[in-house]
Amino acid sequence: MFHDFKLVDDRPVVIQVKEYLKRLMIKGALQADQKLPSTREMSGLLKVSRNTVIAAYEGLADDGFAYAIPGKGSYVAAIVDQSATDSGGTEGPASWQVDWKAKMNEYAVAAVELDMMKQGIRAQKGTISFTSIAPDEHLFDLGDVKRAFMDRMAIEGQVLLNYGYAKGYKPLMEYLMRYMENKGVDISGKDMLITSGFTEGFDMVLSALRPSGRRGAAICENPTHHTAIKNLKLHGFEITGIPLERDGIDVERLEAVLKANRFDLAYLIPSYHNPTGIVMSPAKRSAVMNVMSRYQVPVIEDGFNEELRYSGAHVSPLIATVGKGNGVIYIGSFSKVLFPGLRVGWVLGDRALIDTLESIKRARTIHTSTIDQAILYQYLLNGNFDKYVKKARTEYKRKYELTKACCEAHLPEAQLSGDGGLHLFLAFPPGVNTRQLLAACTEQGVIFTPGDKFFIAEGEGVHTLRLGFSRVTDENIERGIRIIGEQTRKFLQG
Amino acid sequence: MFHDFKLVDDRPVVIQVKEYLKRLMIKGALQADQKLPSTREMSGLLKVSRNTVIAAYEGLADDGFAYAIPGKGSYVAAIVDQSATDSGGTEGPASWQVDWKAKMNEYAVAAVELDMMKQGIRAQKGTISFTSIAPDEHLFDLGDVKRAFMDRMAIEGQVLLNYGYAKGYKPLMEYLMRYMENKGVDISGKDMLITSGFTEGFDMVLSALRPSGRRGAAICENPTHHTAIKNLKLHGFEITGIPLERDGIDVERLEAVLKANRFDLAYLIPSYHNPTGIVMSPAKRSAVMNVMSRYQVPVIEDGFNEELRYSGAHVSPLIATVGKGNGVIYIGSFSKVLFPGLRVGWVLGDRALIDTLESIKRARTIHTSTIDQAILYQYLLNGNFDKYVKKARTEYKRKYELTKACCEAHLPEAQLSGDGGLHLFLAFPPGVNTRQLLAACTEQGVIFTPGDKFFIAEGEGVHTLRLGFSRVTDENIERGIRIIGEQTRKFLQG
Repeated sequence: MFHDFKLVDDRPVVIQVKEYLKRLMIKGALQADQKLPSTREMSGLLKVSRNTVIAAYEGLADDGFAYAIPGKGSYVAAIVDQSATDSGGTEGPASWQVDWKAKMNEYAVAAVELDMMKQGIRAQKGTISFTSIAPDEHLFDLGDVKRAFMDRMAIEGQVLLNYGYAKGYKPLMEYLMRYMENKGVDISGKDMLITSGFTEGFDMVLSALRPSGRRGAAICENPTHHTAIKNLKLHGFEITGIPLERDGIDVERLEAVLKANRFDLAYLIPSYHNPTGIVMSPAKRSAVMNVMSRYQVPVIEDGFNEELRYSGAHVSPLIATVGKGNGVIYIGSFSKVLFPGLRVGWVLGDRALIDTLESIKRARTIHTSTIDQAILYQYLLNGNFDKYVKKARTEYKRKYELTKACCEAHLPEAQLSGDGGLHLFLAFPPGVNTRQLLAACTEQGVIFTPGDKFFIAEGEGVHTLRLGFSRVTDENIERGIRIIGEQTRKFLQG
Repeated sequence: MFHDFKLVDDRPVVIQVKEYLKRLMIKGALQADQKLPSTREMSGLLKVSRNTVIAAYEGLADDGFAYAIPGKGSYVAAIVDQSATDSGGTEGPASWQVDWKAKMNEYAVAAVELDMMKQGIRAQKGTISFTSIAPDEHLFDLGDVKRAFMDRMAIEGQVLLNYGYAKGYKPLMEYLMRYMENKGVDISGKDMLITSGFTEGFDMVLSALRPSGRRGAAICENPTHHTAIKNLKLHGFEITGIPLERDGIDVERLEAVLKANRFDLAYLIPSYHNPTGIVMSPAKRSAVMNVMSRYQVPVIEDGFNEELRYSGAHVSPLIATVGKGNGVIYIGSFSKVLFPGLRVGWVLGDRALIDTLESIKRARTIHTSTIDQAILYQYLLNGNFDKYVKKARTEYKRKYELTKACCEAHLPEAQLSGDGGLHLFLAFPPGVNTRQLLAACTEQGVIFTPGDKFFIAEGEGVHTLRLGFSRVTDENIERGIRIIGEQTRKFLQG
């Protein structure tokens, strides 16, 4: 015994010894009331210092795995592990198999079916992947993030590590309220809830709303963010898609649809729309909000990537256009601009609504990580955000222009859209099926996101694709798009 | 103009100037195409350096709030803020008021109604509060937490800040799998999902299960964790409570109930049960699992405070007693032992179940904060957890014994329970109503948690209370319990 002990580099030796011995006891290799080798002996057997063994034996006693008899030595405690109780038998808990799949409800089954990550293309090593629209981690200013953490820990580390409030970390909320005011939002009568990113905010709003009909009815731009489609479906909403024009949603179609049917909400992405990259024009923002208020259909505004404006004047979010009106729920997040790993978003809306969402938040996760909120707050406060966004904008703008130029050169067949952000959207002539194109490109070591998954109805958008460029090198942008171009030509000829 | 600019200490001056000017533009005090004062002039007006103004003007241009004409100066951009569009009017988006309360569904309304934080007693300054069972933040070893963060950031900071996996941060999952194996769990056929604390794990499991009847039916210990009662109710479960004996749930009553009705699940807290503090005995653990497997009712095991064992031998969790059986879902968290602010918990259970929960997790929050997971992982790896738990156990055990002694001295009428953890549970003779007792004690500056809220049915447990001692000083424990004693006597005499 004790010959299979192996030390690893990166953990305290005492703990490794303790866990090794625990494992032997759990497995039954060391039995209750068996005397452990003396500390001197064990030190020789495991080739660790005697002090280490002494500390490990003490630790085992603390954890209830051993006991010491003064003057005699350490013994294995009668640890209670019932797993042996019915081993060998064919009845009892150990042979009890629950068919969990059969116990899953509609919601759970749908969550799996609609989970695109599980059906995603696995990129082989060396593949040029245009599938991600996450930020380029090489831009991350780790030094500033570390400083933000250390600064905040120095100010109130104990507060950060104990329970926080369901609504959010107060300094961050105050900061973001002012931030939204600076975007022109009238915050009177409104309140804010901090969430674990945009997704949680959206999911919570949907789970709180009572549909006016048997099922909920929602309006979206078509195409739209696939997570939004998924979550609307998961919450039982029927979705009506409205096509996009160069400057945003088609307002005439929107009004026609509103006239004909009753809707519970609209979900809109006015800036750097995902996947098309379109920015809704100021005039259209006014027109949309006039129509929505006339038909009394609340709007969930996705503030997605609003900060990644490359050029042009500041455009106010939809929620700024309604003044004291409470018909817009704004959901913001810095994830795509800043650090997706920090799961922080915010819902800004009517005070009574936020009050309800606060209770739902508390029931579901108690509160959002205070460390994440505190790092974000201090990072913003330290002025790092402005500095970072300036750098990120410059870099992404450069890549955006490179990607655009490559598309124009190698994919003249495709119609481009995208005024900024981290991706471009391409529409090919109807003949090109981008799922088939993807299959051909994958063989050549290039992948992208087929556009159909952003469309509401099956069979729509089969000739479109999204190119995320944020994490692709310049060289690979050029090479990848050239390959897509070659495959497209083959496709059009074949 | 510009006379109301006030500098604060803790933010970069450039950003303060920029935001101040943005605000004037948003409010309309600075109008489109208006020339801004020269940088020299503005520097005098705001009493900041000229370089600061130059940088602020550049920042405004970057953000689309200003533009520069070379040789002439900086001008306010035609920022697009439609909030003025219909100001003054009585129609349109600005006067559009949605009645959000009326739009809330049953779930949302219930979440508010069952939200005890909103009905909580607000402690006045100086009040001795026994309501919290959160850890004492003075025990936190901030230095070790900072080191864990810095260590991990140095190893893979960029990975931590970009998107992670819905299932969890891999190093942490591997660590916790081994950790659970060391508790005697057979992990074959099982998998793990990292969640934002216990609460999220529990909520997700409940939202995935298809009830066998019209409503779900659950068994709980009675009393039990009030968040569990709340979430079971929110998910439409009918709850059957089983009373507790000195060594855990009453197995005879459990079996009688199982014989009479069909149940979808049982929720059990075998160690340091909340609120009674009872540890289920090893024999009872076997007995319970034999019964549950006989009746094929899956168990959700709450691993709550399992680490806060003060004395006695190591007791295996329920999931360790079923070997390869998959009838137990274990939900763990270090929140109460370690840092509640780090929102990290884990669900360990059947692989097919975890696979479904992974999709639900992705749909709801994408993934748990990677920073939280990484700090926890490195903290565990560095051996800080063992060190901290040793310190915490010693301190809490001391407080536990003090609290117990004070109760025995000042509250001889009450029957005590609690074998460890961060609280004691008291049952008074039926004459004492603890809500009324609380009202009397509040006037004397002492508050506690009335026990009725931990009971399944209304009107149960009205003579019980929970005393959380973790965050109360020794002196206040003594004083507070003496006051409760005095009020109890008055109550019994009156």
